[in-house]
Amino acid sequence: MSAEYTEAMDWLDDIKWDADGLVPVIAQERASGDVLMFAWMNREALALTAARGEAVYWSRSRQKLWHKGEESGHTQTVHELRIDCDNDVVLLKITQQGHEPGIACHTGRHSCFFQRLENGVWSAVEPVLKDPERIYRK
Amino acid sequence: MSAEYTEAMDWLDDIKWDADGLVPVIAQERASGDVLMFAWMNREALALTAARGEAVYWSRSRQKLWHKGEESGHTQTVHELRIDCDNDVVLLKITQQGHEPGIACHTGRHSCFFQRLENGVWSAVEPVLKDPERIYRK
Repeated sequence: MSAEYTEAMDWLDDIKWDADGLVPVIAQERASGDVLMFAWMNREALALTAARGEAVYWSRSRQKLWHKGEESGHTQTVHELRIDCDNDVVLLKITQQGHEPGIACHTGRHSCFFQRLENGVWSAVEPVLKDPERIYRK
Repeated sequence: MSAEYTEAMDWLDDIKWDADGLVPVIAQERASGDVLMFAWMNREALALTAARGEAVYWSRSRQKLWHKGEESGHTQTVHELRIDCDNDVVLLKITQQGHEPGIACHTGRHSCFFQRLENGVWSAVEPVLKDPERIYRK
């Protein structure tokens, strides 16, 4: 890794990584303001996200880098990276690619936050825009 | 605790609490769509939030319930509770009370996400709306 590259990564040292070396990340659609998903990044994922201008997360379940959209084609173009006052949460302003309107959720919905508490029950209040079988079957 | 009360809390059992019994929470301003802050809740905090219609978080640093605005007066009226597809993240649609425009951040800014990555440096890009000394000094 060149000295230039290392220096250019100083902003990564400003992040307060948790005990697992991760930081929580909120992905917000720039055009609509909708919160589309929540995931995690490690240092490498955040560096790649900034370098590529596309969201790369860390999959805690699979314990590996997860280039969002690598299977579905539903990539996320990153316009802005923000951190909060404690430097321990990242907010991405993105455009959800691959479908109109964008599909961020593996269930085929626009947003992962499609369940609303109504009369003491979580109810799905957003439509499935595309059958997940058709999203992930090549 | 009455049987009715216990039954009415079934929706809390749907949450996938983490190893510490917590769930991450995103607070989004309903009117603007702005993501104002990120915090954590335990079961009691989420139950209280729903019951009161005001955000009550769990402070990990102080290890106690934290009724947002208890010192500052900057409470959060909760209009909607949502969870994501994995049932392990909560999204609140709120109105930030106590100041116009709303101040969610302890630095006196509208949103906690006021630092944007610009040319490899995190830059504060939102103004302080009220001096924190004046927010917290009674």
